Amino acid sequence: MVFMRFRPQLIFSSLPRPTPIVVSKPRTPPAATLAAAAAAARRRHHSATPMAAPSEDALRRALAERQAAVDAQAEAVRALKAGGGAPKADVDAAVEALKALKVEAGAAARRLQQAVGAGAGGAAREELRQAVVNTLERKLFYIPSFKIYRGVAGLYDYGPPGCRVKANVLSFWRQHFVLEENMLEVDCPCVTPEVVLKASGHVEKFTDLMVKDEKTGTCYRADHLLKDFCKEKLEKDLTLPQEKADEFKRVLAILDDLSAEELGAKIKEYGIVAPDTKNPLSDPYPFNLMFQTSIGPTGLSVGYMRPETAQGIFVNFKDLYYYNGQKLPFAAAQIGQAFRNEISPRQGLLRVREFTLAEIEHFVDPEDKSHPKFVDVADLEFLMFPRELQLSGDSAKLMKLGEAVSKGTVNNETLGYFIGRVYLFLTRLGIDKSRLRFRQHLPNEMAHYAADCWDAEIECSYGWIECVGIADRSAYDLRAHSEKSNVPLVAHEKFSKPREVEKLVIVPSKKDLGLAFKGNQKMVLEALEAMSEKEALEMKAALETKGEAEFKVCTLGKDVVITKKMVSISMEKKLEHQRVFTPSVIEPSFGIGRIIYCLFEHSFYTRPSKSEEEQLNVFRFPPLVAPIKCTVFPLVKNQEFDDAAKVIAKALTTAGISHIIDTTAISIGRRYARTDEIGVPFAVTVDSPTNVTIRERDSKGQIRVDINEVASVVKQLTEGQSTWADVAAVYPAHVGPQGDQE
Amino acid sequence: MVFMRFRPQLIFSSLPRPTPIVVSKPRTPPAATLAAAAAAARRRHHSATPMAAPSEDALRRALAERQAAVDAQAEAVRALKAGGGAPKADVDAAVEALKALKVEAGAAARRLQQAVGAGAGGAAREELRQAVVNTLERKLFYIPSFKIYRGVAGLYDYGPPGCRVKANVLSFWRQHFVLEENMLEVDCPCVTPEVVLKASGHVEKFTDLMVKDEKTGTCYRADHLLKDFCKEKLEKDLTLPQEKADEFKRVLAILDDLSAEELGAKIKEYGIVAPDTKNPLSDPYPFNLMFQTSIGPTGLSVGYMRPETAQGIFVNFKDLYYYNGQKLPFAAAQIGQAFRNEISPRQGLLRVREFTLAEIEHFVDPEDKSHPKFVDVADLEFLMFPRELQLSGDSAKLMKLGEAVSKGTVNNETLGYFIGRVYLFLTRLGIDKSRLRFRQHLPNEMAHYAADCWDAEIECSYGWIECVGIADRSAYDLRAHSEKSNVPLVAHEKFSKPREVEKLVIVPSKKDLGLAFKGNQKMVLEALEAMSEKEALEMKAALETKGEAEFKVCTLGKDVVITKKMVSISMEKKLEHQRVFTPSVIEPSFGIGRIIYCLFEHSFYTRPSKSEEEQLNVFRFPPLVAPIKCTVFPLVKNQEFDDAAKVIAKALTTAGISHIIDTTAISIGRRYARTDEIGVPFAVTVDSPTNVTIRERDSKGQIRVDINEVASVVKQLTEGQSTWADVAAVYPAHVGPQGDQE
Repeated sequence: MVFMRFRPQLIFSSLPRPTPIVVSKPRTPPAATLAAAAAAARRRHHSATPMAAPSEDALRRALAERQAAVDAQAEAVRALKAGGGAPKADVDAAVEALKALKVEAGAAARRLQQAVGAGAGGAAREELRQAVVNTLERKLFYIPSFKIYRGVAGLYDYGPPGCRVKANVLSFWRQHFVLEENMLEVDCPCVTPEVVLKASGHVEKFTDLMVKDEKTGTCYRADHLLKDFCKEKLEKDLTLPQEKADEFKRVLAILDDLSAEELGAKIKEYGIVAPDTKNPLSDPYPFNLMFQTSIGPTGLSVGYMRPETAQGIFVNFKDLYYYNGQKLPFAAAQIGQAFRNEISPRQGLLRVREFTLAEIEHFVDPEDKSHPKFVDVADLEFLMFPRELQLSGDSAKLMKLGEAVSKGTVNNETLGYFIGRVYLFLTRLGIDKSRLRFRQHLPNEMAHYAADCWDAEIECSYGWIECVGIADRSAYDLRAHSEKSNVPLVAHEKFSKPREVEKLVIVPSKKDLGLAFKGNQKMVLEALEAMSEKEALEMKAALETKGEAEFKVCTLGKDVVITKKMVSISMEKKLEHQRVFTPSVIEPSFGIGRIIYCLFEHSFYTRPSKSEEEQLNVFRFPPLVAPIKCTVFPLVKNQEFDDAAKVIAKALTTAGISHIIDTTAISIGRRYARTDEIGVPFAVTVDSPTNVTIRERDSKGQIRVDINEVASVVKQLTEGQSTWADVAAVYPAHVGPQGDQE
Repeated sequence: MVFMRFRPQLIFSSLPRPTPIVVSKPRTPPAATLAAAAAAARRRHHSATPMAAPSEDALRRALAERQAAVDAQAEAVRALKAGGGAPKADVDAAVEALKALKVEAGAAARRLQQAVGAGAGGAAREELRQAVVNTLERKLFYIPSFKIYRGVAGLYDYGPPGCRVKANVLSFWRQHFVLEENMLEVDCPCVTPEVVLKASGHVEKFTDLMVKDEKTGTCYRADHLLKDFCKEKLEKDLTLPQEKADEFKRVLAILDDLSAEELGAKIKEYGIVAPDTKNPLSDPYPFNLMFQTSIGPTGLSVGYMRPETAQGIFVNFKDLYYYNGQKLPFAAAQIGQAFRNEISPRQGLLRVREFTLAEIEHFVDPEDKSHPKFVDVADLEFLMFPRELQLSGDSAKLMKLGEAVSKGTVNNETLGYFIGRVYLFLTRLGIDKSRLRFRQHLPNEMAHYAADCWDAEIECSYGWIECVGIADRSAYDLRAHSEKSNVPLVAHEKFSKPREVEKLVIVPSKKDLGLAFKGNQKMVLEALEAMSEKEALEMKAALETKGEAEFKVCTLGKDVVITKKMVSISMEKKLEHQRVFTPSVIEPSFGIGRIIYCLFEHSFYTRPSKSEEEQLNVFRFPPLVAPIKCTVFPLVKNQEFDDAAKVIAKALTTAGISHIIDTTAISIGRRYARTDEIGVPFAVTVDSPTNVTIRERDSKGQIRVDINEVASVVKQLTEGQSTWADVAAVYPAHVGPQGDQE
């Protein structure tokens, strides 16, 4: 088993790889052919603006042709001039033709440049991202952690508005999942002893491949260097021969499937050196991404900061199952910090070293994955991107969830139910549904034990980003901890009446085995007892017909001959009163920071100020998410207005509505702009001691409301009992000078 | 500076030391005499049931006298018997007298035993704790972390009901502090680079003294071993001579003030060995309590898991101050995990290696610590335990907060305001106000820079436990980070009109200093520039009168002679437009886990079942805190009742009220008992498809309510708009068979 790494993102491949949501689980290595097919499919479809490969090839060919024509014409011009005898008109015409050919070649180069690199779409996305990130940093949604000490790569603080957005998202998550489904929420420590993460596979497999600058010791992610090299070649070297371009593309597509040796060989082949010093690089070797520490004072007890919260739930399965009255299905949930010691976190807010996960482990009988509430989500229709569409080169399609399950595209109802609930969760937060898709894992992305796995991917300026993973992980995790801890993590189904079952009974004769195999007796005996039902029945048949059977004993590394006396094999009927089994687990796992970042991009827009002299930033957060629900502005500095503002503020506090009073002496228009920039949906302007205006952020509409009603109107609006249209129909519109006009 | 350690708790000294809330800050070493006086005072007053020391001494003396009388009489009996000639009646009488004396001595021993050890009160407390902890563990309020792997000392999970209680407490904290005061909440990472914790002093001073078993390497806290030894002697050795008993008590009282050398000397003197092996122990040495790790792959960048959340706020001061429009005062807040790698965590839920802190840093102008909302809390009256009462041997007293501030008992209004708000917070959660006191730090407990410090202490079975620290830390933290980072963390007060100020101007003459001091010129020059105003004015006077002055240059280690030519010193008038200063910070810091544990004890009671055959456990959580607000019980298995239960459940979900449906086929009485045990305040029994009962947990009263009104009635009750008495006056009481009767 190797650890799953992330699928390559061709266009945005220098951008952050998502933090490990589903990533952190073992899987089998993909079959090479399958990987190549899948990679080709991914190459075609994982970019934000699907890029038709033939078109790029054609552009590359066209450029090469134009360039060849330029070269030929230049040669011709030189020959004409060198000869000296050519008429001036001929020379002039040849020069004109050369100029025209150069213009054509230039245009071809620009077209290719646009197709392969940061073309018009890329530039627009980059611009949007800059505008969003600037606003976020300026308004303290985020702050690089420990900034006065020049920060630490990959660590960010949420500042005041960001922190409130996060609290709102988590509170809604609790309401939407934990409360709605009566999940058992737990809260486990981050410090985790080694044994737990050995059982889960993280100690061995949670690694990235690293290379070191051989002189300075600076560390790099091996795949990043190779990726950068190939991308740079493809984007900058427009005269790259077609076969070379194809090779680099192939490398990018299979990057995540390369072994340490293969990566090392490519780095050598391409002569890649340390980017900062141009020094030679070491061979790639695995670096474990967990933050290691020591528990207690002896230094002997190794611990790690958890890489995910899920393990805390698995190790508590037994207690939680009893707490739930020994009934399945049930779900446990956990919200908490997780850690990942990135080798060199490269960009921004999507790839960080510490992040908040919200994870659900829904335990279910593997023989019955139906869900009673599936009907509630079956009619939802949204963008789904099943395996087949990815492999055939199509795009994500609108599908009805009910049909996706009934047709078997989604493995089972419970998985489907969570896909639907995740869709509702994200869109209610304000994620644009046209930029949200559910992408099924390709076979080589999935752990070998997983039954099915879908990622909620959100499109932002970085491309399609995995924000939620929803995986049917079968019984893997509980089995791993059962084995390591020797505590059975199983469920029981009591039969209403005992059932008769046939059971294989294998009884070796120690005496006869001892006589025949002496010192090897124990190995043969254990191998006999460990036979599968099929093997045993074959041996039984052979013994009955031939009196003896060949038998391979792996621990001896050879075949032995078993005779009738040595073992008795029979099928016996038994009464069973219950079925004992390891539950399957369906795991929706949410990268909260990533969801919030995508939400910021989806909520952001600009509009011109009234004077049209500048662009104003707005976050169109729904009230559910908005860091502050309401601002209160006394129109001018005036005791009466201040008193009214205080009355309103007190009522808002009582109603549990977060708000701020802004008494700065700047114009109302400026104050509106300031409040729009942190996404406050409603602003109350106190322009009279008894009767004030409420203004809605996106429509900029204003109504007049009695000060004693303000809190209840804002509460209705923010809690969703009324829309702005509803209240605008009841209360008079404001007509007056102040407002966005100023 | 040494790090503040915890005050000794004489009676409960083997019990957990609170996690470091205020503990984690440097302070100056206390003057020895002050420490002794304070320690004596603490010895008398920090036990849960104040134990009069003279009475214990008297008991010890009485026992010694009785024992002496027994010995004397036994000798007399032996003499009578040995002589042979004594009349049998005399011998019998002497033996009877011996018996009577032995009975008296036994009684005296028991009285002493009770006074010094786990007497009747102690036993009752121990019993209560066991009942609470058993219920908490059985109902999964808590689970020892990684239990299937035999756990890790000092790490606990919150299971489902505990997790909900915690979420409710934190949500109320946000409402009560952050929202109410418009605090700037931030959310910073746990992983912290070394430089930050060097500036704060934690790398150097956040330590406990440790000894090692010299053969096995097992580690112990040095003070714990000494404490255990003294306690054991005092409690078990009833024949301890008075002077020895006094010595052990003195050691216990000064335990936290002992240096490594003093602790080591005591351990040697008493011959204390490793408790498990009886091996000799190493000398005590400091062990840093932070979990250390490495950031990034090189191993060169040391990081720690933060020991408190406060530093994340301090390093962001500059951004937060600008965010707040460069206005003071303002408060920032943070909720998050903190870590403390205890040497050997000994008990339960109060002393853990990872815990949730909620911290506030209220930044204020050191020249104006008034608070506009202090009037709102000035009339509150509660138990306060100022320094004077502790030193004079009195108990905590009911005091009005307004008076405590106006009399100067509490240093300033802002500190007083937070004390009041903390009182309201804790009592609204359900902390018993008669078991809550605010204790002022004694001078030797406080950091040298602190202006004043009060702990909210809650009495539980472990004694009085520090749960919230409220400290005026002056400008210490911001200054420390300013110095280390070279980023000024200051505030500005712009003057409405410029002010004329006199400023000292020192202008050394480089030429003349160079001529006089050659290579030492630079040192002398720097020393002159660094003079305080007082030094400079003295030198100015000397130069004017004598023409020269002696001047000590520390960096040279000697005095030099400064002449008039070498320096010009003058006071000049300047216009200043603003005042630049480092704000003071007032820091309320909440140990959330400890508050929750104390709340569990304060909320717990037992009452007999109807049959009086058993005691039933109840948590009387207020609805604000209760993990589940409401349970729904269909009386019998029946489609109509199940459907009605679902209708109610849906309405409760819509109303945002957490609830569970319990359809188990056990009696309603049993189901009520089960729900009482996790502190659910209201239970709905569906005994009709249209009209159901609502039962209140503590009164066991029941009313009948239409199913369509259930959610709104429960919402009113849980959100505090109505009391049980209010609704009981409106809705008919239930009369019928089911209920607690069964």
